[in-house]
Amino acid sequence: MKDHAKLWLAYTPKKNNRECALLSKFSFAGADGTDSIVKNAAAELKCGLKSMLDIEPEIVYGDTAAQIKISNGKDMQAREEYSISLSGEGVFIEGGSAAGILYGVFDILRTIACEKNIEEAYKAKKTVRPSNPLRMLNHWDNMDGSIERGYSGESFFYVNNEIVIDERTKDYARLIASVGINAVVINNVNVKDAASYMITDRYFDKLALLGEIFAGYGIGLYMSLNYASTIEIGGLDSADPLDEKVISWWKTKMAEVFSRIPTLKGFLVKADSEGRPGPFTYGRTQADGANMLADIVKDYNAIIIWRCFVYNCRQDWRDRKTDRARAGYDNFMPMDGDYHDNVILQIKNGPMDFQIREPVSPLLGGLKKTNQMLEVQIAQEYTGHQIDVCYLIPDFKEILGFKTYCSESNDTVADIISGDTFNSRFSGIAAVTNTGNDFNWTGNYLAGANLFGFGRLAFDTELSAEQIAEEFVRMTISDDEEVLATVLGILLPSREIYERYTSPLGIGWMVQPATHYGCSVDGYEYDRWGTYHRADHLGIGVDRTDKGTGYALLYNEPNASVYNDPEKCPDELVLFFHHLPYTHVLHSGKTVIQHIYDSHFEGYDEAKQLAAKWETLKGKVDEDIFENVRERFERQLVNAREWCDQVNSYFYRKSGIPDEKGREIY
Amino acid sequence: MKDHAKLWLAYTPKKNNRECALLSKFSFAGADGTDSIVKNAAAELKCGLKSMLDIEPEIVYGDTAAQIKISNGKDMQAREEYSISLSGEGVFIEGGSAAGILYGVFDILRTIACEKNIEEAYKAKKTVRPSNPLRMLNHWDNMDGSIERGYSGESFFYVNNEIVIDERTKDYARLIASVGINAVVINNVNVKDAASYMITDRYFDKLALLGEIFAGYGIGLYMSLNYASTIEIGGLDSADPLDEKVISWWKTKMAEVFSRIPTLKGFLVKADSEGRPGPFTYGRTQADGANMLADIVKDYNAIIIWRCFVYNCRQDWRDRKTDRARAGYDNFMPMDGDYHDNVILQIKNGPMDFQIREPVSPLLGGLKKTNQMLEVQIAQEYTGHQIDVCYLIPDFKEILGFKTYCSESNDTVADIISGDTFNSRFSGIAAVTNTGNDFNWTGNYLAGANLFGFGRLAFDTELSAEQIAEEFVRMTISDDEEVLATVLGILLPSREIYERYTSPLGIGWMVQPATHYGCSVDGYEYDRWGTYHRADHLGIGVDRTDKGTGYALLYNEPNASVYNDPEKCPDELVLFFHHLPYTHVLHSGKTVIQHIYDSHFEGYDEAKQLAAKWETLKGKVDEDIFENVRERFERQLVNAREWCDQVNSYFYRKSGIPDEKGREIY
Repeated sequence: MKDHAKLWLAYTPKKNNRECALLSKFSFAGADGTDSIVKNAAAELKCGLKSMLDIEPEIVYGDTAAQIKISNGKDMQAREEYSISLSGEGVFIEGGSAAGILYGVFDILRTIACEKNIEEAYKAKKTVRPSNPLRMLNHWDNMDGSIERGYSGESFFYVNNEIVIDERTKDYARLIASVGINAVVINNVNVKDAASYMITDRYFDKLALLGEIFAGYGIGLYMSLNYASTIEIGGLDSADPLDEKVISWWKTKMAEVFSRIPTLKGFLVKADSEGRPGPFTYGRTQADGANMLADIVKDYNAIIIWRCFVYNCRQDWRDRKTDRARAGYDNFMPMDGDYHDNVILQIKNGPMDFQIREPVSPLLGGLKKTNQMLEVQIAQEYTGHQIDVCYLIPDFKEILGFKTYCSESNDTVADIISGDTFNSRFSGIAAVTNTGNDFNWTGNYLAGANLFGFGRLAFDTELSAEQIAEEFVRMTISDDEEVLATVLGILLPSREIYERYTSPLGIGWMVQPATHYGCSVDGYEYDRWGTYHRADHLGIGVDRTDKGTGYALLYNEPNASVYNDPEKCPDELVLFFHHLPYTHVLHSGKTVIQHIYDSHFEGYDEAKQLAAKWETLKGKVDEDIFENVRERFERQLVNAREWCDQVNSYFYRKSGIPDEKGREIY
Repeated sequence: MKDHAKLWLAYTPKKNNRECALLSKFSFAGADGTDSIVKNAAAELKCGLKSMLDIEPEIVYGDTAAQIKISNGKDMQAREEYSISLSGEGVFIEGGSAAGILYGVFDILRTIACEKNIEEAYKAKKTVRPSNPLRMLNHWDNMDGSIERGYSGESFFYVNNEIVIDERTKDYARLIASVGINAVVINNVNVKDAASYMITDRYFDKLALLGEIFAGYGIGLYMSLNYASTIEIGGLDSADPLDEKVISWWKTKMAEVFSRIPTLKGFLVKADSEGRPGPFTYGRTQADGANMLADIVKDYNAIIIWRCFVYNCRQDWRDRKTDRARAGYDNFMPMDGDYHDNVILQIKNGPMDFQIREPVSPLLGGLKKTNQMLEVQIAQEYTGHQIDVCYLIPDFKEILGFKTYCSESNDTVADIISGDTFNSRFSGIAAVTNTGNDFNWTGNYLAGANLFGFGRLAFDTELSAEQIAEEFVRMTISDDEEVLATVLGILLPSREIYERYTSPLGIGWMVQPATHYGCSVDGYEYDRWGTYHRADHLGIGVDRTDKGTGYALLYNEPNASVYNDPEKCPDELVLFFHHLPYTHVLHSGKTVIQHIYDSHFEGYDEAKQLAAKWETLKGKVDEDIFENVRERFERQLVNAREWCDQVNSYFYRKSGIPDEKGREIY
């Protein structure tokens, strides 16, 4: 028995392209055949062609291109670019470096796996340069094997505080490289217990080996760092970033770390957040903390990624002036320009915490002189725990396409994180990942679409959610047209359906505290987390306008004016920005309360339809896949029903306004 | 350093009675000096007199009274009776048996510890017969050392699945015997893991030794039993009480158990409750299950105590017909008379689960042909976790004094559980206990009053809450009159204060799920536990009248009519029985909503006053005691404030009705 699924690299036999003679000969240019990445690319190509088409290609290697030292994100993009062209002699893949060749190989294999005709696909020379320099996964794996917000088993990196390297490690690298990921943070941002010792001799050998494996697939190794390492493992009594003893300890430590793990590319740091230590403890700024570390790792061409998830997690629910949504902006904007050029700020897509619907963080489009990276979450923490199906790529597309009005052109989030808008030295996109040691990696097979899709979208932000979903289904589930249509009919609307049966109109939360799965309308209402809906018998929502917390004004115009005005604000965000009476009429023509009722009944009903669609696939897809998803739909329907009935009952009991359609509310 | 406090057996030097010559000579009658209980009584007397008064008494032993074999509760009471009289020669203690002598000794030591004059106290011969045959503590200790609903450390019976017997074991026996406890169930009613093996060779030797120690203080050893032992440790595939293989297994097992633990008195069983196995699994009645076991243990003069806490814990919150409050009655009344005469049904005081205010269970006064025992809880699960001070004896007094109208006279709960009303063969009272291995046994020193008070009240239900509190304070904290007045001023109103700042008017719950500490008004509202307040924008409460679930009619008249009518129902229970508009006027003259506001503001305010009173004791009581209680008051005030503000805000937001007094609501 296989211990893990091969997912989109299953390379099952294909019908088309079997007679394509061009596939018998490949020329690689850009790196010679001795490069470990090129070797892996060649092996992958041979394996894929043999399995899918029974072709054993000859590969000719060209010269190595002049190796550019990477000094910024543009260099990275250039080195990862690839071109594919056909000639009478065969297929020609040219890479900006070995990594480019690898991506080109995966492009060809994907084309074959999707049963597209090679000669048509590459009739014109195809050149692709990745949209983002950094395309990163953040693992929240703990060294005891648990995964914070993990919904697909335990860690495959760690067992009992030891690093495990096996067949799965390599297959993981193949899977994520195949969709274009080039950076992985291998441990939880909440660094504690054994993870504090990752930068000690105890783990160096294994980390060096892991880094080598990753490097062979063009993937940079990153680690989360405990900001207070000087205290926790260094024996100092301070972590003050301006303290000479602290700086000196880090210099020595980093020299050791980079000499022992030569492939290491940098660190991710969560400081001063949710109880984690940080520079605020010492009266220093976030920039002081980040720059201190960045200056030291600069000698090793490494970077410091600094999370902007800093807010007061001990807020008083009685206090309506403090606004958690403002926290990231208020904490990080004043120092725009102060961060050194190998620091990247990693910014969550929304100002809160990965809710099913949030406005885009105003830091994106606010910061103009700081390297930036967008953080999204494919671990379905608030979006159904990989029980409920929730294809997130449409959400990410909206975020990337959001016009920030930070400049006259090239002002979308995609533009900013590509590095184009501000000519940033480094930039990119990271996802908190959704993997674990479950056989199928992601718990629900359909959740694999988010892992696949994140990588593909990060590499090419122009791809549509539909294209990506189609590739995923064809490669992972089935290329039968009827199956494809059915699964697309499940994946594509799933995020809006999840939204409809959960928290309405952008207000977010209403989840069970701690687990974040299941409904509890008041679950966080009287708690310390700054996450309130402020519903009373007359209305609901948070006033974040100029008359409220002022958050809406943190956006550039015209966004600020749009969000600040309940008549202009898009319906889907209106309760995020405004406290409105239940009788307020939305752009949709419905009142707020009727929208709540309608969307919840519809959402639950649509969830049932999704489940029914899946049932039609019995016997048409792999039995393991069918049962896995079927069982999760069973649980999703229980969840959706609870959400629907609890939300509707809560607001009916509170408002006293009946459903226009007289449906059953409790 | 002492590893545990001596509490009310501290025997500190006393001022009074030092010149009392009578205390130099004691005569014990009823058992001779070779009896282990008498030996312990003599040792206790000598130790107490020496420590408190520097007196070393001579003790003369009389003949052993004719030993009556105990065949019912009346025999037990007779054997535990004691008389104390004075003559020119000294103090004469006559016991119905050795246990009576022990209780007599503790009576005298208590009198001295409370600085009461011996010659006055016993001027007239004092004869005391315990009110209840069984006066029991139920430990919810697990063998891994954890305690379910324990708020004062870990178990002192178990460490790492082993039974620990040390100095503390004996001091525990002394402490509880001194207040009249004569039965202890030493393990959690939820029997699982290692506890399933308590009836195997693995633990017999230690249990025999523990039973011996208890027996030396007149305490019977009881164990909780896993109803499914035949499956879990017996290797059978059934626990059907009518299955011959099951019966045969139990016969063999019980013969082994009682031969190895000769002092064992019986078992407590939680069956068919909250996921525990039971006879319902096999389509049998609760009586079938209990009787099967009872018939087998009868040969060893042992009893089966069967808990009536059987209800549907997977209820649908949408369902307003099912009423958890009815469950005990509906499950157990139909078989009244079917239970064999060495079965006792153990009935929680209220129909729900130890809320701060509940009506008395209608099984008490309903069952007429069944042995009954009342179950209360001194572990402060719903009453403040031994952080908040909550002296429960006033609550227990109300319960015991409740007239059930089950007969023309002798119809109170106290009458029923004494065995008088129905001439029951066995009866009594049990408390889920509040102890752990904290230095002071009960977390908060003031929670010791509930352990002390439960024993005292179980022994003599005529004692008042005030008398008991005074004894506790004098013996445990200080006999200084000012300190006494202050601590009484804290203890006596504490339960009503706790009630005022938590859930109002008998509705109960509104607690944080799982932990049961802290406020969450909707915490259980949309959950499966059958514990709802049904609040909407117009009103609150559960309709348990003839027009609702009919629960009110389960009581004898006139209770049924009183509870069924909102105009007659006592205010403190009115929302338990009725769904009422917020504008309904209570007997107090206040509306429901104004009562909610007033009681919560008052309760929080009064909690602050309690804390302030305690502050005045700095320097006047032991520093350890002072700091222990002070620190808990700090936490109580945080808790009380949250309750006050959350409940008021919740109902203001829901009802839209402002506080008449315009106080701040959020």
